[in-house]
This record gives sequence, C-alpha cells and structure tokens, in this order.
Amino acid sequence: MMNKYRLMSPGPTPIPPEVSAAGALPIIHHRTPEFGEIFTRVNENLKRVFLTENDIFTYAASGTGAFEGAVQNLFSPGDKVLVVNSGNFGGRWVKMCKAFGLEVTELKYDWGQKADNDEVAEALANDPEIKAAICVLSETSTGTVNDIQGFAGVTQGVVSIVDAVSGLGACELRTDEWGIDVVVAGSQKALMTPPGLGFVSVSEKAMRMHEQSTMPRYYFDWTAAKKAYEKDPAQTAWTPPVSIIIQLDVALRQLIDEGIENVFERHVLLGRASREGVKGMGLTLFGPDEDLNSAVTASYIPEGIDGKQFVKMLFREHGIQVAGGQGEMVGRIFRIGHCGYFDAYDIIATIAAAELALESLGHPVELGKGVGAAQRVFSKSGAVA
Amino acid sequence: MMNKYRLMSPGPTPIPPEVSAAGALPIIHHRTPEFGEIFTRVNENLKRVFLTENDIFTYAASGTGAFEGAVQNLFSPGDKVLVVNSGNFGGRWVKMCKAFGLEVTELKYDWGQKADNDEVAEALANDPEIKAAICVLSETSTGTVNDIQGFAGVTQGVVSIVDAVSGLGACELRTDEWGIDVVVAGSQKALMTPPGLGFVSVSEKAMRMHEQSTMPRYYFDWTAAKKAYEKDPAQTAWTPPVSIIIQLDVALRQLIDEGIENVFERHVLLGRASREGVKGMGLTLFGPDEDLNSAVTASYIPEGIDGKQFVKMLFREHGIQVAGGQGEMVGRIFRIGHCGYFDAYDIIATIAAAELALESLGHPVELGKGVGAAQRVFSKSGAVA
Repeated sequence: MMNKYRLMSPGPTPIPPEVSAAGALPIIHHRTPEFGEIFTRVNENLKRVFLTENDIFTYAASGTGAFEGAVQNLFSPGDKVLVVNSGNFGGRWVKMCKAFGLEVTELKYDWGQKADNDEVAEALANDPEIKAAICVLSETSTGTVNDIQGFAGVTQGVVSIVDAVSGLGACELRTDEWGIDVVVAGSQKALMTPPGLGFVSVSEKAMRMHEQSTMPRYYFDWTAAKKAYEKDPAQTAWTPPVSIIIQLDVALRQLIDEGIENVFERHVLLGRASREGVKGMGLTLFGPDEDLNSAVTASYIPEGIDGKQFVKMLFREHGIQVAGGQGEMVGRIFRIGHCGYFDAYDIIATIAAAELALESLGHPVELGKGVGAAQRVFSKSGAVA
Repeated sequence: MMNKYRLMSPGPTPIPPEVSAAGALPIIHHRTPEFGEIFTRVNENLKRVFLTENDIFTYAASGTGAFEGAVQNLFSPGDKVLVVNSGNFGGRWVKMCKAFGLEVTELKYDWGQKADNDEVAEALANDPEIKAAICVLSETSTGTVNDIQGFAGVTQGVVSIVDAVSGLGACELRTDEWGIDVVVAGSQKALMTPPGLGFVSVSEKAMRMHEQSTMPRYYFDWTAAKKAYEKDPAQTAWTPPVSIIIQLDVALRQLIDEGIENVFERHVLLGRASREGVKGMGLTLFGPDEDLNSAVTASYIPEGIDGKQFVKMLFREHGIQVAGGQGEMVGRIFRIGHCGYFDAYDIIATIAAAELALESLGHPVELGKGVGAAQRVFSKSGAVA
C-alpha cells in the first residue's frame, strides 16, 4: 500500500512547506541590497534563536565544518582542550581536536549517559593549562541531552564550546544568560532548513582567544568573517548558499512567530509523548527518561527482533524514516527524531507504525496502547486540546 | 502548540509534494510541442484512470462547470431526464437541470441512503420519453457511494451520466466495462491535483445525443472540443490552465505507477480503517458500513457535543481539517475525506485527534481505542506490514 514519506530522523529533518516553496524562488545575486535585506534579517533572527548578542558567522558548510572552524580559530597546535565524550559526536570532536594537534583530556561516558559537570569542574581544576572545554548539547547518537547550563557554570574559567548542531532551536539553550562562548549549529535540524549551512556564535572572550591562535586556516577564518561583517553586516566573506539562506529566512520567521519559549515547550512535549509511546508499547527506553531529552528519543529494540530489519520495515512498508543505532549501538536501538518541524501527530503516526511493524515481526503488541500513552501526554498538557 | 496543517476534507484534497513542486515550474506556452507532449500524455493517462476509450474533454472549470457542459451538450429545452438525488450533489444536478429547462423526474432518497437501482429501472420503464439518467458516484455530502455498476446496468436504454467528481481515481468505476456514457470529474479530489480542471468523458452514444441537442452553449461545446482534438490531439479549444495540467501530468503518473487497482484497494482500506476508527471511539457511523464507501467517512456527532465546535476545534487546535455536515446535516455529522493522496497514517492521526478533541469537549473517550481499531484494519490486510 502507498504510504507517504515521513522523515522522523534526527537530521536532516522535514521542512515546512513554506520553506520548500522558498527554495523554488529564483537565485538572486548576493552582492545586492535585496540579498542584504534578507541576510540582515536572518542575522537578527539567528541571534533571537541563539539567545545571544554575540557575532554569529554563517558558512556554506555542515555542522562539522563549522565545528572545524571553531577548532582552527581558537587553538594553536599543542593547546590543551577538555572534551566531553558521551556518544558518536563527542567522539568526533575528540578525533577532530587530535587531527589538529591538540592535547585532549577526554571525559568519557557510556553512551546514553549524561556528562557529570562535577567531573568537568574537577578535570579543569586538575589542569589549569586547559584552555577550552567542549560539550555536546543533544547527543544525536543516543538522544541524551547534556546539562549545558551546569556545564557553562563550571567552565567560566576557560572558553566553553557547545556543539548545538542537534538541539539549537529545540532544546533550551541560553547562550548569553548561561555564558557560553562558542555555539556551533547547522541548518538541517531544529532550524527547519535544508542541510548546507553551518553557524558559529563567538563571544568576546572567544575572540580574544582566537587572536592568539596560530592554527592555519582560511575559509573558516573568523577574522575574515568579522571583517566582512564590519564592512557590511548584510554580507558574508565568501559566496553564501543563496537559496538556503532565503529558506532559512522563512524558517526563522516561523520560529520567531511561534515564540522560542513555545518552541522549547513543544519539544519537551514531543519528547515526553515519544517516551510514553515507546514505554506504552512495552519497549525499554535507552538513556534517561527525562524532559531534558527533547530532541531525539532512543529505544532499545526488543530481544528477538532484528533492529536493522525493524528500521528498514518502518521505512519500506510504512514510509516512516527513523534512525537505527550508530557505532556501538548499531542494531540495538532505534531513534525517533523530533527536533524541528514536528508535531503531535508525527509522533502518534510513528508510534502507531512502530506498533504495527513490531506486531508483524512477531513481537506481542497491543495495537493502540503506545499511541494512547502518547495521546495522554498531549491531553494532559492541554497543548492540543 | 504548533500543529501542522493536515487537509482531511473530501475536497480539495492534499497533493503530493512532487505535484506541488511541478506547480512552481515556469508557465510554458500552450501552443507548443512541449505542452503538446505533456497534454498528450495527460490524455492517455486520464483514459487509464477513467478506464475508457471514449474522448475526454478537459476544461478550465470546476466539476460543476464540466457538469453544466454535459447538460448543455446533451439536452434540448423540455427534454426529460431522471436524476437520482440522495444528497447535496444529487440535489445540485436537479436544480441545474431545471435551470436549463429540463423536465426532471427526481428519485429522492434520504441523505446517507444509496440509490435503489430497481427503482431507477422502474422509473425509466414508466416513462419511455426520459432520454438520460444521472447518478452521483460518491455523494460527498454523506459519504455514501452509489452502486454505479448496477445503475449502468439498468440505464442502457438511455444515456447514463455519472457525477464522478468525488470518486474518480479512488472508488472503482469502470466506464467502458460497465457502459457509462458520460463521466464528469474534477482535478481536486482523487486526482491529487489543485482545483481548476473539469473533465468529461463522452461515449459515441452520448455524442449522437449531443448532435440532436439545441441547448445554447459555446465555452463547453463538445463539438468545438472534439474539432480541436481532431485537428491536434495535443491541444485544447481554449487556453488551458497550463500549470495545473503540468501538475496533473505528475499526479496521473503517480496514480499509474501505483496501479489503478491498487489505488482502489488502498481507498477501500482507508475507508474501512476510518469506519473502524470512528466506531472504535464509540461514535455512530452515518450511512452504510460497507466497503463501497471508500472516499468519505461520515459519522454522527455524539449527543451533547456541538458539531460545529468539534470540527473547528479539530482544525484550530489540532491542525486537522475535516468537514462538517452540509445542508440538512449541518452540525449533526462530520466527514473525514480520504479520497486521493491519503495513507494509513493520515487516518490514524485523524482518529487520534478526534479522540483528543472529544475528550476535551467532555465526551468519554478511551484514548487510543479508535486508533487501535484503525490500526487493526491495516494489520489484518497486511497492507502496511
């Protein structure tokens, strides 16, 4: 039977139809007042979503590219950095820092665990030469969201760097209020825009650290970006991906219209409903059962079920694209993304499809039970009724 | 909370994203080989969906416009016609025939009832001067689908006219096999295309009746349409709505790819799941509980619930646009459309939302029960698993 394609992955994520439509607009030249008007508004609205007055630099890059830019711009070879690693992305930043010749103090946690900010404080206290500390906001590989307010609190003595690629615009993140120096993000998650843009917000403290950095760089150079911005705040140093910026403009205005606090609250409810739905159908959550985890819900695959087959069946036979496990969790968990353009009925459809797929794989399921549990979250919240 | 817009009405209906994207293509001139290639393919594929070898004329018009064309082209003032009226649209054709000075024998049925084809046969036998008989395929106002195979069987002595605006490409309708002379349709229902196009398929027998007709007409004139077609089958008599035809081309190719028999079967399942969902949440169906009703599911609003408020709440608070009652059923029923680009999870989302809305209006509902009943239809059919 024909099923519609429903993208329920942690990234890329579906985009609103108005954002799709904007992608069909003609390409305009970027060195024009017309583009400048759009990009100026994008910059202002990005700041409202980052909750910062810091400069935000926008690159034609994935989130990993923007992250590489942060490493190149902040450090010199041999510098010491603390990296929290509780999943695939924490692990990536360890590798990246090492690739650039940094001396990495790695705080490693089991996948699914949250970072312990007391241990972050202790590690920094034990080695005053550490210049910066890196933590992931939402660890996409596990669904676990770290306590970034706590992390920011214990890293005030160094430069704090947060990978918010998966999370910015979904999970509560108060860049200035919490005092986070560098926040890296991408267009393809909660910002409801196609992949292709990487962002970095840079505090004055981080800019001062940047001025001491001797790492070779050109494309991602913050000084070049800042110079271009100071010359004309409506322009980027290099050619920007015009159509994606036009789409981002539409998406950001939708987020601002919804209200960033409402956006956070919506994601809390989507996460809560996903967890209740998963538990309601008798599965076991992977990671903490807490409202912090509002971007991705991870669940163990029940024993006797082939995890890869389950994820494939959800896609091929139900049209619903969730994600399987990454790294050490391949085949053992599946992940429902709800970070971005998602609503109550996306979650309900996904839980209903998971029930049907489990049933057809021979797992005992009472159809509608997980769905009912998810519905009760929305019912109780008064959010949809 | 932000909810996506989900159009679950009996028309217009949602269109596939590829059809939306085609609507963003540039307008091309229609007197060109490029347009001709598209329109030729559209004509061929329309015949595959109408299941006919008859000529099909395409108009910039709503279904009502194409229907008016049929009346203008077939009849002369004072001609006798039999009209089956079992709802809002049957009633419309009675009024239209009278507006054109026809003498109407009206076979009236209560809303929600099906036409009795024995009575159609009897009425025709009683008055040999009746030249044509009109019946609606899917009576959108009630969700009831008439037995058109039976209707065609008893109307072979006259010209049979079927209003298939809501139904063609969803409900089984075998124009040539069943011997239906005139089938009227529109772009905005099961053909998964925006509103704006009306179609009529015309048998040789109907063309002969047309040749005797003296009704004044110009825009919808079948002779003009046929002449234009014979001169160049890739062209229409008047300017066609280029962008909607380009979109229809994409939509028809999707229907052909899915397979028209599979399309019929999908709609049977969507109807069955909707009915089980409605009954599962404790509501009472309006109209027969049978698989023929595969385009629209109508349900009574439970006592004590304000029907208009319920439909409004589903839209304003859940993003789900169903339809209320029309005419005499205003405020007493609601209607879920599933005629066109709909799948299992559209039905499940709608049932889940109806449960939540009823609960918040104080009606006793066990959340997930109706959803489970709908899921079991898809589970049993093996259609999604």
